[in-house]
Amino acid sequence: MNDDLKALIRTIPDFPKPGIQFRDITTLLLDAGGFAQTIARMAAATLGPVDLIAGIEARGFIFAAALAAPLNAGVLLIRKDGKLPGATIAEDYALEYGEDRIVMHEDALVPGQRVLLVDDLIATGGTARAAVRLLRKAGAELRQAQFVIDLPELGGADALRAEKIQVDSLLSFAGH
Amino acid sequence: MNDDLKALIRTIPDFPKPGIQFRDITTLLLDAGGFAQTIARMAAATLGPVDLIAGIEARGFIFAAALAAPLNAGVLLIRKDGKLPGATIAEDYALEYGEDRIVMHEDALVPGQRVLLVDDLIATGGTARAAVRLLRKAGAELRQAQFVIDLPELGGADALRAEKIQVDSLLSFAGH
Repeated sequence: MNDDLKALIRTIPDFPKPGIQFRDITTLLLDAGGFAQTIARMAAATLGPVDLIAGIEARGFIFAAALAAPLNAGVLLIRKDGKLPGATIAEDYALEYGEDRIVMHEDALVPGQRVLLVDDLIATGGTARAAVRLLRKAGAELRQAQFVIDLPELGGADALRAEKIQVDSLLSFAGH
Repeated sequence: MNDDLKALIRTIPDFPKPGIQFRDITTLLLDAGGFAQTIARMAAATLGPVDLIAGIEARGFIFAAALAAPLNAGVLLIRKDGKLPGATIAEDYALEYGEDRIVMHEDALVPGQRVLLVDDLIATGGTARAAVRLLRKAGAELRQAQFVIDLPELGGADALRAEKIQVDSLLSFAGH
């Protein structure tokens, strides 16, 4: 089964810059059966009941939204700075050159609510770790993060595990 | 029922700029029951079977992804320029000052596939009309667009209807 989904991921060389093998999930999304199986497997891998699924802009929104029905949960948006209309809390994280910021509405969750973090892919994990800090700052009970794709050589999943997050991914790709 | 969902939409004055009453769907998304009811009503309003649901970046992704299971369809991403890794086709549209561009993968659909277009809100409809042109250029059979929120005074839904698109929205707000 794992290989069926993997065959639906397209690899595009040199995007967004030379040397990067971009793992493109759009071909998986276009396949109704493949996308349904992806969501079913993520739902089955979820630890216990959750109140909210936090998705990281923009592709993370897709998996958070599709998991809402099977997990009977709401959706919490983690966005780039400036995109949310209400009062926000923020976390900065380092990029290869410079830094970036993600935000969430400061009133998006009630402390103690159980949150599952999702995104399409984990590489170095900089964004995901910032999302963990952000959600915990807001009082979330956060035990698990799920990704469709892990690039284990980049160490992001291990870095999240060091913060006491269980990390589950459906597919793993060697290389960057 | 209509009023129940409307109560879950938060209005934020003067975002993103003075004079705009921003209709914030994030409070609806956080409510598991409200989001489920939103998706159930959009699914029930869908004209006939569709092969793909096209969502416009970024909030449109949420509704496209959540509709995939009830409609047994795939998800097609319509994105800002530069965000898709493969070869794309583009459409430009006018903004209040200047113009902007949306793109989709040129191989995202097979001509004749039935596509439902979705987004969270329709205002002037500039982006939605560009999405219609883009999808039809790719060969989509596009009969309907659905939105959670319509701002009818801004005329976007009527402009889409003039392009032979059935437009359905769950909620309507007066004013801008």
